Amino acid sequence: MSVIKDAANLNTRMREVVPLVHNITNYVTVNDCANALLAIGASPIMADDIREASDITAISSALVINIGTLNQRTVESMIASGRTANQLGIPVVFDPVGAGASAFRNETVERILQEVKISILRGNLSEVSYVAGLSAAAKGVDVSEEDAANDPVDAACQAARRLGCTVGVTGAVDIVTDGNRVAKIHNGHPLMAKVTGTGCMTSAITAGYAGMQEDMWTAATAGILSMGLAGEIAYGRVAHMGTGSFRTGIIDGLSSLNETLMEEMAKVEEM
Amino acid sequence: MSVIKDAANLNTRMREVVPLVHNITNYVTVNDCANALLAIGASPIMADDIREASDITAISSALVINIGTLNQRTVESMIASGRTANQLGIPVVFDPVGAGASAFRNETVERILQEVKISILRGNLSEVSYVAGLSAAAKGVDVSEEDAANDPVDAACQAARRLGCTVGVTGAVDIVTDGNRVAKIHNGHPLMAKVTGTGCMTSAITAGYAGMQEDMWTAATAGILSMGLAGEIAYGRVAHMGTGSFRTGIIDGLSSLNETLMEEMAKVEEM
Amino acid sequence: MSVIKDAANLNTRMREVVPLVHNITNYVTVNDCANALLAIGASPIMADDIREASDITAISSALVINIGTLNQRTVESMIASGRTANQLGIPVVFDPVGAGASAFRNETVERILQEVKISILRGNLSEVSYVAGLSAAAKGVDVSEEDAANDPVDAACQAARRLGCTVGVTGAVDIVTDGNRVAKIHNGHPLMAKVTGTGCMTSAITAGYAGMQEDMWTAATAGILSMGLAGEIAYGRVAHMGTGSFRTGIIDGLSSLNETLMEEMAKVEEM
Repeated sequence: MSVIKDAANLNTRMREVVPLVHNITNYVTVNDCANALLAIGASPIMADDIREASDITAISSALVINIGTLNQRTVESMIASGRTANQLGIPVVFDPVGAGASAFRNETVERILQEVKISILRGNLSEVSYVAGLSAAAKGVDVSEEDAANDPVDAACQAARRLGCTVGVTGAVDIVTDGNRVAKIHNGHPLMAKVTGTGCMTSAITAGYAGMQEDMWTAATAGILSMGLAGEIAYGRVAHMGTGSFRTGIIDGLSSLNETLMEEMAKVEEM
Repeated sequence: MSVIKDAANLNTRMREVVPLVHNITNYVTVNDCANALLAIGASPIMADDIREASDITAISSALVINIGTLNQRTVESMIASGRTANQLGIPVVFDPVGAGASAFRNETVERILQEVKISILRGNLSEVSYVAGLSAAAKGVDVSEEDAANDPVDAACQAARRLGCTVGVTGAVDIVTDGNRVAKIHNGHPLMAKVTGTGCMTSAITAGYAGMQEDMWTAATAGILSMGLAGEIAYGRVAHMGTGSFRTGIIDGLSSLNETLMEEMAKVEEM
Repeated sequence: MSVIKDAANLNTRMREVVPLVHNITNYVTVNDCANALLAIGASPIMADDIREASDITAISSALVINIGTLNQRTVESMIASGRTANQLGIPVVFDPVGAGASAFRNETVERILQEVKISILRGNLSEVSYVAGLSAAAKGVDVSEEDAANDPVDAACQAARRLGCTVGVTGAVDIVTDGNRVAKIHNGHPLMAKVTGTGCMTSAITAGYAGMQEDMWTAATAGILSMGLAGEIAYGRVAHMGTGSFRTGIIDGLSSLNETLMEEMAKVEEM
């Protein structure tokens, strides 16, 4: 069965299983992540205090660690929740927002990689390149020009092998690899870069898919594909209005997705 | 006069009085709470640092304590603001998001109940059951299957008597009781569960109503009814688009509400 | 060349330059600020931990300090980032949300003014009056009745001279002055007060304009004008739907703005 078919099946299953996804994430896009998870059929929970982070992880089906607005208080919660997830076999999706942009982010990334076994790393080319030790320079939270010259398939595959996990690099073409299998996703739309949080939402819904079954490569492909399709649906419907409507349209798109639509719209090459 | 008429009157009065509502709340749905308060005619203020929480409460007409993304820093502010509100006769709406889901949440709930006199407790059946000591188990921030078997009228009445306050249990049918009077609200729409923050917004606007007059049962009925009607308005207008548009439509619905519309649309049984 | 023409030119340039804007801001409207910056053509970054705030400022083109949900942890980051900005010649936009509403806010405002050289102060009449030592009383985050009696041009000019910076006072008519030049902007719509964060978004996009060139008065005029025009565009398109759609429409408006539209719609008196 193709990864498209698997992903489409998981989309249906999400609305039956309603996996609980624990998010330790940034305060910029947290509302979008919650609504994206609800739209795709999962149930979001946000909790970042060290006194409860592990308890919440323990009742969840998946954990997202997103360092978008990193602070010293929540780093400890990320580590504690990550360890709990590892002990209980709960998948961990890591979104290294802005990795490379400050020493604090870089030290935190290193610490998370040392103390937590990541299931899926999801970022843009700069972030993934940085995390895997392949990067030059990052400019804020966007892809730097230097890193843009890297081949994303190469970078993703190297990252997957170095880190021993599934890696999803989102960009003009999205790459998902576990070091062996590679999916190239030709969905999505460039306008998505003009809405904050499309990357964070992608990581969140990827965790929803990861929370339902064992295959992280399929989960990451399903998550990134779902977001791309939601972007296309939104683009077709409301992009002419502007980026505010487009943002709303992306959530609408996620809630409109279903198995049939995914199979029809998906443009995924398996390599 | 019926509670519907009272609630509708208060809706008109809100836009004249513009009560200032102090929210110590979570960072997931805080923007929605602010926009919901503005839409209904109130004025929101968010402040959670211990060095100013009480000062802000003291200039406000009502206080909301919402533990959605609880942390140790803001627990102290919740207690301090709650005490100030009690001293000054300012109503306190308590939204025990996720009560039962972690030891930290449970201890915090207990501490708040010990140190602050709550005017209105607003939650789903699991949360209210937990807070009132009637509960079994909670799964994240949604109603658990075990608790779903409880009768919401019974649970709300028991909670109201144990805690000596008005209790609003939102669900398929919303129940509001002060231990004597009971309102059953048959408004709202199940799709509201697919938008994060509909509960938090309900608590916020309930505080707006509570900030204008003495009768907490009427305030809670008005707040929960307003949210239900906003959900129905949104459903009729934009639910076919998806849950992103539905979220926007709920705020539109709150801002479109008026006395006449409330009287026409309300389905409230008084018992 | 008129300030309208300059502002319109800068709007085009924004989409070419894509200035990175560092925001240390509140958690209520932070998502709106990020989306507003993206919509106008800039790139937002949010970072508030003392361990990285200065590093992030150093790679940015402008800094916004917004005290909407002030807390002791981030005050130190505001100061550190402000100093770094000053050392590197990076413009600082200060949004003193709720200044006058609590002793903590007032002390923080004083400390920021002492330790950081502000480029642009952007607030409502109460906030600016308070910051410049001209104020009576504030009620939450809105303009108090006492302050509403002040003449905004007088208040803005006095503030600009006392603080030695450009001052933007937003209200029914917006005033921008550097103490010499005065722009009166007759754009915008009163309904914007019913959406949380229109002030915060104005400060954020003002920082985008400030990050591209030296003239702070033109930057502040461009930022405040852009927001007013976005509000008018949104009002014309979707205000009949309600304040939720209006909020989305404001972001749409920012993303729809261009040089021609700005020149056509702007109603700016230069004095």
